[in-house]
Amino acid sequence: MKYDCIVIGKGPAGITAAIYLKRYGYTPLVLAKDGGALERVSDIENYYGIPHITGPELLKAGVEQASGLGIRIVEEEVLDLTKEEHFLVTTNAATYEAKTVVLACGTSRNRYAKADAFEGVSYCATCDGFFYRKKKIALIGNGNYMAHECSVLENICKDITIFTDGLPLEAEVSPTIPVVLDSIEKINGDGKIQSIEAGGKTYPIDGAFIAIGKASGFTLAKHLGIELNGSNIVVDSTYMTNIDGLFSCGDSIGGLLQVSKAVGEGANCASFISKYLKKNNL
Amino acid sequence: MKYDCIVIGKGPAGITAAIYLKRYGYTPLVLAKDGGALERVSDIENYYGIPHITGPELLKAGVEQASGLGIRIVEEEVLDLTKEEHFLVTTNAATYEAKTVVLACGTSRNRYAKADAFEGVSYCATCDGFFYRKKKIALIGNGNYMAHECSVLENICKDITIFTDGLPLEAEVSPTIPVVLDSIEKINGDGKIQSIEAGGKTYPIDGAFIAIGKASGFTLAKHLGIELNGSNIVVDSTYMTNIDGLFSCGDSIGGLLQVSKAVGEGANCASFISKYLKKNNL
Repeated sequence: MKYDCIVIGKGPAGITAAIYLKRYGYTPLVLAKDGGALERVSDIENYYGIPHITGPELLKAGVEQASGLGIRIVEEEVLDLTKEEHFLVTTNAATYEAKTVVLACGTSRNRYAKADAFEGVSYCATCDGFFYRKKKIALIGNGNYMAHECSVLENICKDITIFTDGLPLEAEVSPTIPVVLDSIEKINGDGKIQSIEAGGKTYPIDGAFIAIGKASGFTLAKHLGIELNGSNIVVDSTYMTNIDGLFSCGDSIGGLLQVSKAVGEGANCASFISKYLKKNNL
Repeated sequence: MKYDCIVIGKGPAGITAAIYLKRYGYTPLVLAKDGGALERVSDIENYYGIPHITGPELLKAGVEQASGLGIRIVEEEVLDLTKEEHFLVTTNAATYEAKTVVLACGTSRNRYAKADAFEGVSYCATCDGFFYRKKKIALIGNGNYMAHECSVLENICKDITIFTDGLPLEAEVSPTIPVVLDSIEKINGDGKIQSIEAGGKTYPIDGAFIAIGKASGFTLAKHLGIELNGSNIVVDSTYMTNIDGLFSCGDSIGGLLQVSKAVGEGANCASFISKYLKKNNL
């Protein structure tokens, strides 16, 4: 089955986009493991029409509303996004195909700022693994997304060390790969990254791959070579990124990080996707 | 009392803008006689977080939410908007002063398209009355807004005929001014407007003033010389019109005529007004 649109994210932007697409007669699929930033918001009093609600309550209401309209919502963790003839979205459980994709998965909380100052730091194993074929690399992360990146790197690189940065290892990786559970104390380098200090030890490396937390709009954008402005995905006036057929809205594209704005953009984005699908006879 | 902002309109865009302004620490005033297009919507199922609601219910919920946050909402009919040192908004009951204004009063249902083809047609007595000092003019309309325009024209023009276009006269005008209650059958002219046919009679005129229904964003825009694109108010990326300090959002600026979009724009617009007030030390 090929979906008209896969919406990654089940917050206000994603659900609104899905509702509008459904109403336009298209078949959207919503993929998301959790509700992002809204899950941690206790009081919302500035969303029109609802005097008071908590973030989790609003998320739940949105998901139920979309389900009630017949929209399929799958609670799987998105690990990868690629484009061949169509878009392929890989989760921890399956791969889904779609004509268009909306990245509506919120702000990028898994950027690793202290590594960003150095060269030799990548957010995409598939894109950059090849450059480190015979090199010593660090893979920073502790969950499914890290494990996905690890499985890609294992086929390319010989010498991988996983750094969970003080977090427990929450995914299965090959037992031959060393895992450092200590917090990262310092990253050293001279332009190019050279070593990581953790648990009182210094680990010399040639490169580092960042796969912290869940794959976010930011990391998925990195996988596809989407234009970014800082951590924000850059879109044109139709909410399309520089990748044809790939759209983004809500917190992912920056601006006011508010439910109101996300909802407005979700509606507008869906209307432009509808026009895009028609224009391209998809 | 000078308000930080007067929001004209109490629909989703206006109320959201007012809620955000209040939350930013400003004192907004909302002025509106009715809820516009939403009052006639029976089913809304695509507004995030609310599975089903009617337009009037949503309007009521929004007004109560804003009132609950301490926002002043005055149910008066806006008749005029001018700018001297600050903005002055005239209603049927009073004049209010503000540092900024948001036009969030919906689409322009009171444009009179069949007259627009001719020269000699105006939407603003204050702006254009002077050009018709010794001329025969028609004033088209039947309510308070028409009566307001009539009071302006009376001081300038000698020969005024009111055309209600088949509607009952619903406002008080000077008893010396003739009122034609018949439907307008035809408007004649050769480039410039020349006569109006109604009730089987032909009334020769030199110019016509349109004041149908209530003053809308469109008509208020005409009063201030705001740039329009068709009936839509033109705004920049900060939702400001070509008049400094005058903003607009929601249906008034065109695009998707949806609650979702209006709410998103209301939030964004308020954030830009907050920046504008700070930047200009207002």
